[in-house]
Amino acid sequence: MYRPEIKVLDCTIRDGGLMNDWHFDTAMVKAVFTGLAQAGIDYVELGYRADKKQFSKDDFGPWRFCDEEDLREVAFECDTKVSVMADVGRTDFDDIIPAGQSIVKLYRVATYVKDIEKAIELGNHCKSQGYEVAVNIMAISHALEPDLDAALDHLAATDFDMVYLVDSFGYLQPRQVEYMAHKYLAKVPGKQIGIHTHNNQQLGFANTVEAAMKGITCLDGSIYGIGRAAGNCPLELIIGFLENPKFDLRPVLDLIERYFIPLKQELRWGYEMPYVITGLLNKHPRAAMAFLNGAHGDSFRAFYDELTNIQDV
Amino acid sequence: MYRPEIKVLDCTIRDGGLMNDWHFDTAMVKAVFTGLAQAGIDYVELGYRADKKQFSKDDFGPWRFCDEEDLREVAFECDTKVSVMADVGRTDFDDIIPAGQSIVKLYRVATYVKDIEKAIELGNHCKSQGYEVAVNIMAISHALEPDLDAALDHLAATDFDMVYLVDSFGYLQPRQVEYMAHKYLAKVPGKQIGIHTHNNQQLGFANTVEAAMKGITCLDGSIYGIGRAAGNCPLELIIGFLENPKFDLRPVLDLIERYFIPLKQELRWGYEMPYVITGLLNKHPRAAMAFLNGAHGDSFRAFYDELTNIQDV
Repeated sequence: MYRPEIKVLDCTIRDGGLMNDWHFDTAMVKAVFTGLAQAGIDYVELGYRADKKQFSKDDFGPWRFCDEEDLREVAFECDTKVSVMADVGRTDFDDIIPAGQSIVKLYRVATYVKDIEKAIELGNHCKSQGYEVAVNIMAISHALEPDLDAALDHLAATDFDMVYLVDSFGYLQPRQVEYMAHKYLAKVPGKQIGIHTHNNQQLGFANTVEAAMKGITCLDGSIYGIGRAAGNCPLELIIGFLENPKFDLRPVLDLIERYFIPLKQELRWGYEMPYVITGLLNKHPRAAMAFLNGAHGDSFRAFYDELTNIQDV
Repeated sequence: MYRPEIKVLDCTIRDGGLMNDWHFDTAMVKAVFTGLAQAGIDYVELGYRADKKQFSKDDFGPWRFCDEEDLREVAFECDTKVSVMADVGRTDFDDIIPAGQSIVKLYRVATYVKDIEKAIELGNHCKSQGYEVAVNIMAISHALEPDLDAALDHLAATDFDMVYLVDSFGYLQPRQVEYMAHKYLAKVPGKQIGIHTHNNQQLGFANTVEAAMKGITCLDGSIYGIGRAAGNCPLELIIGFLENPKFDLRPVLDLIERYFIPLKQELRWGYEMPYVITGLLNKHPRAAMAFLNGAHGDSFRAFYDELTNIQDV
């Protein structure tokens, strides 16, 4: 597919950090940024900017906080823009310095539907400091449709740049992505719409392709699919799909070979049956992660039965 | 999706055998058939019926030949039907005994477009012996469209039961599956159309779903995606997608846990960058399999460059 207006955002360090508390070493993150710049990626998301009053540097690696000096150690000014994510309720507004003093170009505000007004407040602050702003509405497969519609209406009235469709649980099928893409494009005219998928049912790439075919223009991927639990849409598949000659697959192949094949042995994101089961059942992967850590009985069958049993309410 | 007319065919032993020369032990194959029968699978393909004048039992395990007594050791008469595959040019017609004497119910004839008349001859023989017959046209991403059209026209004039759309190289995107599904359904009316995918670009399941949405009614899968190179569409994802209550995911979960997680460590089907590269470039996976055995230089980049370099012709 050749659609030059399509942008690609890599979330390797940010979403991958959910698997190792952001303990990636600086040389590796620098190699990742450099390789992704060579590959022509539009945005590289290097982590969260989390509130240090809530989270300690003793517990988490530097990419949980994305201090300006840490970012400048690994990134440099070029056509590839630095992005950071800011969680509603976990961000100190004072950490968001004026854009002219920062290497960051894009803030992505992550929120649930219920917190959309807080997300808009945080996004407005980022915008007033001079940044591009995206709002990522997470876990939409758990949202009631009228609530999601109202959130999109509110976002349409802002001056933010992007709104993201996020399949946090890896539950959506392509036909549901098509439905959602039409909704987002219709309700939030004039902004870029993005998609961020999870790969529980091996649909991350297919859902991203479906979104692009239906007019979504910002595509998230991560190298070798690294990300929480089943991981994200593999960046290398997106680059293979987009025929824009500005993208080059080869630096990404180098990064996979050097860093991500060994890392996958250690961190175990990807296709695992407990993640398939939570995705299929539209549930948060935390139960699957607990199962893989030995907490949920002794068989896939028992795990499946536990999650599908009707509970007293 | 609830479409009770949809049948599921498991090709675990047949396609998986391409990774270990069909050296699965009998107890394991018996457990697979039994579990798949409990799971409600319509057809279980237990291997090839290859010509013993061309292939030796010294070189290959029993599921390359599917002798009647071997099949009866692992399978039993029930609602789940036994299928075997017969390759054009590698099958002794005399091995195809009358259906009344065999536990086999379905013969699937595998062919390239250019050999379609040979496939029809072999299919006619199977039909005359009393079997259900499918023809699987392999490698359609290398076929010229008029040749494929002519092959489908010839198949439409037979009394075979099914015609299969086969993405041997894992090259097709869902939009191409949609195009092909429309073609097959229009050109071969009155027969069941099936789909068999490979998973090079993590599109095996998505392409199977797309085919089902567009009217294809026989879906191939294999347990934990086992199959040549990148493997096939994972059966467990198909069962999760189809809402027909006759299917039960749990026996498949048991088989994955007991047999296929250990086997994957040994046989290494699945998502590997060389398979991604051959899929993306619409090439046979043999180059990727050779690379993984150490024959093609020392890096993914070199492999990619080798396959993408323009060759003198």
